[in-house]
Amino acid sequence: MIWGGVLAAQTAKPIYKQPEHSISERVSDLLERMTLEEKVAQMRMFHAQIGVALNEKDELELSDKVIEKLKMGIGGIKNPGEHLSPHRAAILNNQLQKYIIENGRLGIPGFFVTESYNGVDAAGCTRFGRPINMASTFNPALVKEVFDAVGREARWRGLHLTHSPEADIVRDPRFGRMSEAFGEDTYLTSQMIISAITGLQGDYKGLKSSHIGAVAKHFAGYAQVAGGTNFASIEISPRTLVDEIFPPFKAAVIEANTLGIMASHGDINGVASHANPWLLTEVLREQWGFEGYVVSDANDIGRLHYFMKVAETPEEAAILGLKAGVDVDLYAEDAYALLPEIVSKKPELMKYIDRSAARVLRTKFILGLFDDPYIDIEQVASSVRSQSHLDLAKDADRESIILLQNNGVLPLSPAKTKKIGLVGPLLTSETREQFANAFGEEVEFIEAKGFELTDGNGAVPQLAPEEAQRRGIKEIIDKVQQAEAIVAFVGGDEFTAKEGFFNNALGDRERIDPVGLQDELIASLKKLGKPLIIVLKHRRTLSINTFAKKADAILDCWDLSEKGDYAIAEVLFGKVNPSGKLPVTVPRSIGQLPFHYSQKEINYKKGYLFAENKPLYPFGHGLSYTTFDYSPVQLSHPVLHENGSMYATVKVTNTGSLPGKETVQLYLKDLIGTVVRPMQELKGFQKIELMPGESKEVSFEILPEMLEYCGLDMEKNQGKGTFELRVGSSSASFQAINFELQ
Amino acid sequence: MIWGGVLAAQTAKPIYKQPEHSISERVSDLLERMTLEEKVAQMRMFHAQIGVALNEKDELELSDKVIEKLKMGIGGIKNPGEHLSPHRAAILNNQLQKYIIENGRLGIPGFFVTESYNGVDAAGCTRFGRPINMASTFNPALVKEVFDAVGREARWRGLHLTHSPEADIVRDPRFGRMSEAFGEDTYLTSQMIISAITGLQGDYKGLKSSHIGAVAKHFAGYAQVAGGTNFASIEISPRTLVDEIFPPFKAAVIEANTLGIMASHGDINGVASHANPWLLTEVLREQWGFEGYVVSDANDIGRLHYFMKVAETPEEAAILGLKAGVDVDLYAEDAYALLPEIVSKKPELMKYIDRSAARVLRTKFILGLFDDPYIDIEQVASSVRSQSHLDLAKDADRESIILLQNNGVLPLSPAKTKKIGLVGPLLTSETREQFANAFGEEVEFIEAKGFELTDGNGAVPQLAPEEAQRRGIKEIIDKVQQAEAIVAFVGGDEFTAKEGFFNNALGDRERIDPVGLQDELIASLKKLGKPLIIVLKHRRTLSINTFAKKADAILDCWDLSEKGDYAIAEVLFGKVNPSGKLPVTVPRSIGQLPFHYSQKEINYKKGYLFAENKPLYPFGHGLSYTTFDYSPVQLSHPVLHENGSMYATVKVTNTGSLPGKETVQLYLKDLIGTVVRPMQELKGFQKIELMPGESKEVSFEILPEMLEYCGLDMEKNQGKGTFELRVGSSSASFQAINFELQ
Repeated sequence: MIWGGVLAAQTAKPIYKQPEHSISERVSDLLERMTLEEKVAQMRMFHAQIGVALNEKDELELSDKVIEKLKMGIGGIKNPGEHLSPHRAAILNNQLQKYIIENGRLGIPGFFVTESYNGVDAAGCTRFGRPINMASTFNPALVKEVFDAVGREARWRGLHLTHSPEADIVRDPRFGRMSEAFGEDTYLTSQMIISAITGLQGDYKGLKSSHIGAVAKHFAGYAQVAGGTNFASIEISPRTLVDEIFPPFKAAVIEANTLGIMASHGDINGVASHANPWLLTEVLREQWGFEGYVVSDANDIGRLHYFMKVAETPEEAAILGLKAGVDVDLYAEDAYALLPEIVSKKPELMKYIDRSAARVLRTKFILGLFDDPYIDIEQVASSVRSQSHLDLAKDADRESIILLQNNGVLPLSPAKTKKIGLVGPLLTSETREQFANAFGEEVEFIEAKGFELTDGNGAVPQLAPEEAQRRGIKEIIDKVQQAEAIVAFVGGDEFTAKEGFFNNALGDRERIDPVGLQDELIASLKKLGKPLIIVLKHRRTLSINTFAKKADAILDCWDLSEKGDYAIAEVLFGKVNPSGKLPVTVPRSIGQLPFHYSQKEINYKKGYLFAENKPLYPFGHGLSYTTFDYSPVQLSHPVLHENGSMYATVKVTNTGSLPGKETVQLYLKDLIGTVVRPMQELKGFQKIELMPGESKEVSFEILPEMLEYCGLDMEKNQGKGTFELRVGSSSASFQAINFELQ
Repeated sequence: MIWGGVLAAQTAKPIYKQPEHSISERVSDLLERMTLEEKVAQMRMFHAQIGVALNEKDELELSDKVIEKLKMGIGGIKNPGEHLSPHRAAILNNQLQKYIIENGRLGIPGFFVTESYNGVDAAGCTRFGRPINMASTFNPALVKEVFDAVGREARWRGLHLTHSPEADIVRDPRFGRMSEAFGEDTYLTSQMIISAITGLQGDYKGLKSSHIGAVAKHFAGYAQVAGGTNFASIEISPRTLVDEIFPPFKAAVIEANTLGIMASHGDINGVASHANPWLLTEVLREQWGFEGYVVSDANDIGRLHYFMKVAETPEEAAILGLKAGVDVDLYAEDAYALLPEIVSKKPELMKYIDRSAARVLRTKFILGLFDDPYIDIEQVASSVRSQSHLDLAKDADRESIILLQNNGVLPLSPAKTKKIGLVGPLLTSETREQFANAFGEEVEFIEAKGFELTDGNGAVPQLAPEEAQRRGIKEIIDKVQQAEAIVAFVGGDEFTAKEGFFNNALGDRERIDPVGLQDELIASLKKLGKPLIIVLKHRRTLSINTFAKKADAILDCWDLSEKGDYAIAEVLFGKVNPSGKLPVTVPRSIGQLPFHYSQKEINYKKGYLFAENKPLYPFGHGLSYTTFDYSPVQLSHPVLHENGSMYATVKVTNTGSLPGKETVQLYLKDLIGTVVRPMQELKGFQKIELMPGESKEVSFEILPEMLEYCGLDMEKNQGKGTFELRVGSSSASFQAINFELQ
């Protein structure tokens, strides 16, 4: 240590430019050389739309605003080249990086950031199914492959970080963004988050060159907004927060080593998350050991003043965010931009500036940006959206489609069913082609979309006029008279469920039944007396009571990849046996909310008058074209000891005539706790494939930490005593056995 | 002090029998004489239905079970003589008290307990409007008169305590008990609670002989149950609990001096309220100085084991309740009944027994039961349900009816409208008579109830069959052809909203639109083209979108007194000018929940797609047959100082042609806080009466404590800075002015 200064003096290059030094040495060295203004510049980001472009000669063009913003350096830039082809984006990003490095006094590179919940959010990249589809696969290995591909596609085009994945627990289908996260369950979401982050980051090893850094969001409680409306406040008990909302973030930090965390728009117990040192420093860093950086959600530091109204001035907002532990200000023009002036007057804040700037610089070193800032332009075109990635998208689609119900009509036989009606508002221009690709000319398809759900225009779309819908229904009915079976594409689209912003850009809803006259369409189709299969496409949970009553079979597809209709065709005709499971509880009515399967046991003791208080479909539910038999569950020991482990084993047999995949689910239930305990909690799952007649043993290791929860004193405790272990095919269909924890 | 023992020895009577000694001296003296079993007996209650009766000769008859339970004495008995006339109940209660005193070793009387949210819950007592009606009056003085009458009627029949009023904040109309409390607002509920308790207790002075003790319930958060289902768990942030749920209980203790508090079925942050020492001891006693007794809700100590599952055994449940601070076990056979055995093995628990037994004995001394245990039998018959009490019930009815909308059709003129149809499922057998009483033979009434909403049978009523309802509609339409105006009695009844228990006794709902074909009825009536007035009777908030569209006027009556139809007639014909205001927000759909007017300001920034995100009727709304003009609000000072006060004054003028009453409402809004703050909060109201053309100045004193809230550190703080003051006729119609707190 004592020789550090001497060594530095002896070499031509400063320490921070020498890859053989440790990252912390390089960060310290660089930080010492930087002015306050340069440090604050590292704590800021701007969006490329304000003036980063490539002209026709493939030359970089920067607006005056951007040139001004880059003067002292920059932390990062959001979405450079997002509308360009991968190849041209890579050209742009290389030139942009070169400009930043060469125009900065110290040659500090910038990081370029995207979003990527269903593929890189940029032109020409593979469009995968949405996170809710990934969750429906119950296949973490496959999901990791998908996010590995996403990470590679992003890096190929010159990006370094992504403001994804969403580690939020989504339990309110009114919330327009519910499909961007992994469903209602804490454990399933945690597994998916680990897959997503380790995939994106190439198991961390990939960060230096082949993959990108993940930014898990939105910390914390974002999706718990009152009334399901984006930007609303959050009403949550401390115990639920710690036991149910935190774990996916904790997994992101501890198990997946996420580079970044994004704070949440909302508040917790009234305290704005962007101004919450308990959340961003005590929990995140002191309890979990997070060493990465925290970025604000768009403009949210400034919004501490303008929107949350917990700071008297923008200056106070900046100080609140800084002290709480927000390292990077995404976008705001009047929050961290004010820090140089603020800190020059309050030098005691300098330590926070150093802390945050160091975290940003560390990230850039980890990403290899100081040592190898440029992209191999030649590789991009052949790698992004390659056939293997498109095949991967299809694989994920196949495993995410959920067979909600089936009276035997599925799979359709191409030999017997020669003429099929493809109808309904969710039919796309691709559907027919994808179906034909899957089955050649064997089957004839009669297409009749009928009507659109909305006018699709503007920030606030309107529902299509009823007459137009009714005409559409008539048109559909007229066209399908000759069909031997009908496949109805219904549900919701990108205009009926989306992220809602301000300025009346709406996306949340106060109803969760299918919009418009879709129930009427289905009832009319049913009257034709032909086999009626519903293909449900949607971005929020819908209470599809009428569909459930009328349809012979329902395939729940959520929002599949760009090749999604291909997988749907494969499933309809039995080329693929469906194996998706519901990552949410489907309620019969919005009035049943909150209605996740893991509510407190006492919540299940009472029902509602004039209504069946069961889910329409329970969490974990999903049928197959074959059947599975579960043997009684066996425990390796009747008692689990404090530092011991135990195995629960079940033999699953494919008792049908088709090969199939089954997700065997493990639920645990604490019979007596020190606080009121959930009805049951998912604590493990394994997806297995079985040939007809084949049996497999599935074993789950039960560890005492799986029984932990926040005790009376808000510390983690393991309730001793009796537990019920459930193994089965859904949260409502299982074998149960008790065991003791001693 | 040193002479105490000597004095006691010198007198023939023990100290506890001498009224000249202080209550605490008498309690100490008595406690010292009691065995463990006798002390625990004071901590128990049983329900009279297990065997307390009066035979035909007016002699007391006790079952063996009751005799057994009385052996060691008893804390109290619930509902003795509830089905008897007031006179016979008084006879029974005197004999029962005599038995208890004379059969006990120490002559300790019992207390007899009722419930009384809308009058004493016993035969022959005046049936007043429900608490939600009382809240709708916005008239605390009148509500106090009502509860004063209730307290007297209870004492006359020999009762001493009531498990009322409900200090819960009801914001979820799915909850079947919402009409038993005073609405969604913290301040309004606090005012009503003070009126109810000081009324019941005769300003505390009445406790010794003329009135009864109040037991405010359910502490705390009872109505915040998940999904609006009774017995479910509660998801609430600590700040909301302290700022919004606690204040009515705090007012009950500090301002109204309630004798008792009942704990809540549910949990807070997972901790069962009956096992929560923070709630029942730290907050209630140490912070608020409560000296009364805490009673369990029915069986809830035993339920810590059986239902909440936070105690491994009934014994552990008893210990949890005892230590937390539950003094009296209501009903449970296997909770406090086990204490003698438990405490004999764990003598360290004796201090808790002494603590709780002392609180019960103190209550009995305050109630005068040791000194004057019997009732004057002669007074009962002439006092209970007297004409003055029935008149008082009518007065409260008149002030609680809310005119939701009116296109000018009301008031009806008996001179012009001679033939009126009274129709709909909420029409009672009393209606016609009450209407005739109000107007003699001036008007002819055509009656057509048409149909019932439910079969009304059993614990789980069923909705009436649709055909029966449809026949009813046809019958109504046929009958009212000759009517000149139609008054439709619709909404909900005691079968569609009620307290739900276990064993499938349901009362909560997952929908809040009117049940059955009531919308169809109203639409059919509308087509007749006659003036259509809706009289809405109901026990939960209903989203009456169709009613609102079709009706010429709507009178919201909630659930009035036994004479309620009389007041309705008076209002319809303009004999009484309506002056009720909504104590709740009426949503357009259940999907808007939570939707109280005082949500966090940030919750109002976003709406829902395809829906108007405004209430159907806002909190505080209520029209009149006259009109009121508000002058701009004036402040006595522009700045409020920390220990100062300020006045906000507005001149209100009756600009119409009828006398009328208006509730002038004061709302405050913190523009910037340290935590996210409500959109606005009711902080004062004054109900005034104005003759046509008359003006009155209404002044509100603004004190710094009105601006207090739980700050970042969870301590009460007064946010300095700018506040908005709003004065107006509802939460959505007001004049605003800013002021500074310094």
